[in-house]
Amino acid sequence: MYQGGYTGKVLRINLTDQTAKEEELPLEIAQDYIGGAGFGVKYLYDEVPASTDALGPDNKLIFASGPFSGTTVPCASRMAVTGKSPLTGAVGMALTGGHFPVELKFAGYDALIIEGKAKKPTYVSIKKGNVKFRSAKKVWGMKTLDTQQFIKNELKDQNVRIACIGPGGENLSKIACIINETRAAGRKGLGAVMGSKNLKAIAVRGSGKLPIADKEKLKTAKGAFTKAMKASEVLYPHFSKTGTPMVVEATDAMGILPIRNFMDTGTSSLAEKIGVDVQMTRNVAREHCYNCPVGCSQLKVAKTEPYTGILTEGPEFETFYSFGSVTGVDNIDAIIAADRLADELGLDSISSGVAIAFAMELYEKGILTKDDTGGLDLRFGNDEAMMTLLRLMAYREGIGDLLTDGTKEAANKIGKGAEKYAMHVKGLELPAYDVRGAKGHGLNYATSYTGADHNRGYCFQEIFGDPIPFEVDRFAVERKGELTKWNQDIRTATADCPTMCVFLLDMAVPAIAAQNTADLMEAVTGLQYTADEVQQVGERINNLAKAFNVQAGFTRDDDTLPERLMTEPLKGGASKGQLISPADLKLMLDEYYEARGWDVNTGIPTKEKLQELGLEYVAKDLA
Amino acid sequence: MYQGGYTGKVLRINLTDQTAKEEELPLEIAQDYIGGAGFGVKYLYDEVPASTDALGPDNKLIFASGPFSGTTVPCASRMAVTGKSPLTGAVGMALTGGHFPVELKFAGYDALIIEGKAKKPTYVSIKKGNVKFRSAKKVWGMKTLDTQQFIKNELKDQNVRIACIGPGGENLSKIACIINETRAAGRKGLGAVMGSKNLKAIAVRGSGKLPIADKEKLKTAKGAFTKAMKASEVLYPHFSKTGTPMVVEATDAMGILPIRNFMDTGTSSLAEKIGVDVQMTRNVAREHCYNCPVGCSQLKVAKTEPYTGILTEGPEFETFYSFGSVTGVDNIDAIIAADRLADELGLDSISSGVAIAFAMELYEKGILTKDDTGGLDLRFGNDEAMMTLLRLMAYREGIGDLLTDGTKEAANKIGKGAEKYAMHVKGLELPAYDVRGAKGHGLNYATSYTGADHNRGYCFQEIFGDPIPFEVDRFAVERKGELTKWNQDIRTATADCPTMCVFLLDMAVPAIAAQNTADLMEAVTGLQYTADEVQQVGERINNLAKAFNVQAGFTRDDDTLPERLMTEPLKGGASKGQLISPADLKLMLDEYYEARGWDVNTGIPTKEKLQELGLEYVAKDLA
Repeated sequence: MYQGGYTGKVLRINLTDQTAKEEELPLEIAQDYIGGAGFGVKYLYDEVPASTDALGPDNKLIFASGPFSGTTVPCASRMAVTGKSPLTGAVGMALTGGHFPVELKFAGYDALIIEGKAKKPTYVSIKKGNVKFRSAKKVWGMKTLDTQQFIKNELKDQNVRIACIGPGGENLSKIACIINETRAAGRKGLGAVMGSKNLKAIAVRGSGKLPIADKEKLKTAKGAFTKAMKASEVLYPHFSKTGTPMVVEATDAMGILPIRNFMDTGTSSLAEKIGVDVQMTRNVAREHCYNCPVGCSQLKVAKTEPYTGILTEGPEFETFYSFGSVTGVDNIDAIIAADRLADELGLDSISSGVAIAFAMELYEKGILTKDDTGGLDLRFGNDEAMMTLLRLMAYREGIGDLLTDGTKEAANKIGKGAEKYAMHVKGLELPAYDVRGAKGHGLNYATSYTGADHNRGYCFQEIFGDPIPFEVDRFAVERKGELTKWNQDIRTATADCPTMCVFLLDMAVPAIAAQNTADLMEAVTGLQYTADEVQQVGERINNLAKAFNVQAGFTRDDDTLPERLMTEPLKGGASKGQLISPADLKLMLDEYYEARGWDVNTGIPTKEKLQELGLEYVAKDLA
Repeated sequence: MYQGGYTGKVLRINLTDQTAKEEELPLEIAQDYIGGAGFGVKYLYDEVPASTDALGPDNKLIFASGPFSGTTVPCASRMAVTGKSPLTGAVGMALTGGHFPVELKFAGYDALIIEGKAKKPTYVSIKKGNVKFRSAKKVWGMKTLDTQQFIKNELKDQNVRIACIGPGGENLSKIACIINETRAAGRKGLGAVMGSKNLKAIAVRGSGKLPIADKEKLKTAKGAFTKAMKASEVLYPHFSKTGTPMVVEATDAMGILPIRNFMDTGTSSLAEKIGVDVQMTRNVAREHCYNCPVGCSQLKVAKTEPYTGILTEGPEFETFYSFGSVTGVDNIDAIIAADRLADELGLDSISSGVAIAFAMELYEKGILTKDDTGGLDLRFGNDEAMMTLLRLMAYREGIGDLLTDGTKEAANKIGKGAEKYAMHVKGLELPAYDVRGAKGHGLNYATSYTGADHNRGYCFQEIFGDPIPFEVDRFAVERKGELTKWNQDIRTATADCPTMCVFLLDMAVPAIAAQNTADLMEAVTGLQYTADEVQQVGERINNLAKAFNVQAGFTRDDDTLPERLMTEPLKGGASKGQLISPADLKLMLDEYYEARGWDVNTGIPTKEKLQELGLEYVAKDLA
């Protein structure tokens, strides 16, 4: 059946009745959804009604690696975690790296489906087909790194790989993440879903390697792929030296690095304070993900008080934004410390930083006062207040309780026009790109099935300049619909589903991504695709996820952007004067729905489109 | 030769020329010194001239487990680390637990001798007889737990056991310790010796178990020993539930828990704030050392801001004193956080806390001002200032630079009568017992070969009341000489050398300790001893160490106590009015030297005594 890559098995774990059951992975699911996010969205759609309470026992969490994870294909040790998001109410899907994804495959499973709710804090250990439900009483309350070490000791096995939640997830923070090693399935609050199920951690241990269907074909396919990697002008020459934070200077120069809750951009001397030269003074070591030749991950150590000696893997670019530019913090050591703290507490660094920046603007505007903050002086740039607030959010103490469910919910509770300063789409806080100066990014934020999520259809063309699939002007609104559909489908099909590193797509293989995935799939699994069929897998998933969201109550009106981005032009820098007006957005959305073959008035997938994608049953659901 | 227990091998590692050499462990060294501290003191005496610069390349560090480590004998996974102490200038010997000690045996060695100085930051990896010198460039600057994880990742082996230094040792803090897992070879600044050698860490990996000479005999010997453990009224009924911190209340009730740099005792409501009931609210899990049935170690998690969620193994009783009572801090969560921080920074928690308490008293008395402290408000009880000062000490920043070499050196630099408030003997900061109300403890502090060290001859009779070897009145000065000799020799011979847990001696087996060690030695190794001969091993080592100290320049005048303890009677509590006057001390010392068979006027071992112990060569050195 499966000639390679897949284990062919799905492990279904029910926490309510503490049972574990192995199921066959149907071949048609492999063929139509590839793996990772594809499996996640498919099982979520089929098994979790869209109206389900995201923090109730009927929500599920699907952990799925891709068919290349655990094979000799490089850069594939990644995994998608999918469930209904408590932060957005939409599909929640987040990818993570590290060693857990491969270990899950070695343990014998393409996917885990977590169901139900344990009566008491529990962790699950999976080893050689043996699933144990263990008390998490002792680790409940522990931070994520301590949790992992404690469980390794308790299981007397230092080689288990563990995905867990921190206090954030335990306390049902809607911006809580899931941490494995120092990697996060960061966004959309999936850590709170684990917390709501009383599931502190999953420990897996396996052995061996996954077989390959056709080794000769794999050699050829890998050849094309590694050649493209080597030809990249960014990947090895820059990225392997600096990692993602090099993008701080690039985006600042483009005038699209958001500063102080999107009030400013391109107006700062940020590069001097937190740019590449300064970053390099904090780098102590480079890390490689499992079977990755690039090694873009950098360990940094803080060098000044009160943060001296604090180590973190990262911070990645997004965190330089969230605990840096958007909060007005230009102390690199505070950014390093906050990155570590967020990982330890199990909070998404993007959403936490943006929620803090939101509170800072409200504080400076007098909408929040010291009475509200418990005396915290929440000025922009106050890094110690930021650190305190992070802890308060994880423990739901004081004002932390208000902010830990994200900016949208906090704004609703605060009232007084606070929503105007809440930088989110569908409840998901905005990532680092000020989309007023990168309009393809803006359309992606507005339409991604997970909310404002750069990773679901990253518009690399506007950042790195590749004319693929065509030449792009970042200020233009025209043709962004077509572009965004392409980006979302290709990203889903060639990165999120086979769980390949996204940086390959962004910086190395965009021109050959679909064909490359087709070649690798045939070589590794024996399943055959044309490049178009690969791309169609992406389209299928974007439609399926959209159908879930429609049933969850989302309408065209939700495909939007924060008011500020549509009404306040950028004040300075290389994108000065730019904004995405409501008319711009309408034009882009119309083009996008058109390109997607969706109803332009409602933004709902048409019956025809769904049929074309083999989703007849979904069409019935929507009818 | 060796029938069991010993590996029979010593590994000599020279950092200067990056060589590693296996040597036979001479049988007579095993017979006369047993292991652990015995091996450490013997190799130190024989190979390191007493005048050696403790932070120079000619000092050595000897890591030695005992003959029972790695066998089925319980409670023996301990190790002595020995070198000349940079803090005292005397013999520096500290014991530690965890898994490293056993792993060292499994790797094939009874002892490691570290010599010379690496040119650049280095760590040593030892695996199956294969020794590698690796660059520590990447881990230099990292805290101890991060260091261990990083090295495990770099060696691609999660099962190596690592002993390492933190920033404290790197920066040559004379109160720096060596950390393995969360265990410390804490006192006497041996972490700075590693730092001075540019040695960041030692990673070991072995396999297997050590053989036993006579399994039937071992069964009998273990029977007596475990029976005594079970009969203890403290060990299982209390100690396994609360661990050492139960002693907080016991000593407070006895009026010997030092408060605010020994200004007060027995006057506080400490038990309410940091006593057993409060401690239990922070306990999350119990840990067992390798092959220990008791499991006295407790993991605690802090529950209030700004410390919420900080986990530590401990704090042990001594740390409740050093970061608690003696600094006037009664916030249990601050004590938990400081314990973790000291471990991470690689600073000895006792010496750090006492140095901070010293600075606090000077600050309150106006001898140090805010100008000196860089604005830190060093009032007693200011826990946040304590945390900051800990970091400053590890990094030698500001006033931390002054305090990080211990109270004695700091007092010398400060002048202005500061020495009066420096609570140390021979430079080593005082442990938790206010010896004015426990005079046997006082004599031990004054005479221990390592300085004020409760662990070299702990006067358990004054705390737990056992009438062994005879009935004891803690306020009396008479017969404490004889008692202290017995305590020091028995402790050395039955705990420090076979590297057995000291709590067995203190709370379970004192009456049978020597015979028990003799029985275990015969059963495990085949080496034969009478109980008297075991005790004589302890005496031999105490004489040999003393001879080192004499040659290092120590005289009878150095066998003393801090001025405060000899001039200020205790102000309150159950030991009110007590002190150890100079006359008391003279009487006790005279009795002690007499009992030791040393020259009473000089406190120097006599030729006859040394000959009796088989130390003729030492007698020649002293002549």
